[in-house]
Amino acid sequence: MSFATPIGIVAALLTTFGFVPQIIKLLRTRKTDGVSAIMVVQIAAGLLLWVIYGILRDDFIIIIANTIGFLLAITTLMLYLIFKNRSAD
Amino acid sequence: MSFATPIGIVAALLTTFGFVPQIIKLLRTRKTDGVSAIMVVQIAAGLLLWVIYGILRDDFIIIIANTIGFLLAITTLMLYLIFKNRSAD
Repeated sequence: MSFATPIGIVAALLTTFGFVPQIIKLLRTRKTDGVSAIMVVQIAAGLLLWVIYGILRDDFIIIIANTIGFLLAITTLMLYLIFKNRSAD
Repeated sequence: MSFATPIGIVAALLTTFGFVPQIIKLLRTRKTDGVSAIMVVQIAAGLLLWVIYGILRDDFIIIIANTIGFLLAITTLMLYLIFKNRSAD
């Protein structure tokens, strides 16, 4: 294992689970003000294309990492829509 | 060029420039409520490690894509801090 491998693993974990703090903040505060829904949709679309890319390339790591990231992005988007509608009531 | 290549390119563009809509929204609304600073810091740290990984692996594409993403994440963080402090005045 080269010196690069552990750095790559930590890098992958930090970016794959990048939406987790945003999910926690949405659940805690229920505030969506300031959060860009377009950012979340754009990243979700990108991660979905990464999954398709991984399938076409038969690359298990790309499939797994981006599937997790995609599901977290979709969770963020759903919470955004739920709390956005509530605050509009 | 395989069918996977254009999908990979679009995937990379969408995720690399993922913070652009958030930067535009911060500049327009100056509202930081709801945005998770921890998310931005975590993703920035992850992207910086991806850059280091790319340097160690001598992978030009990884270096370029993640350097752009890192600089956009840092821009998002700076705008967050500027507008957070202003709204606290």
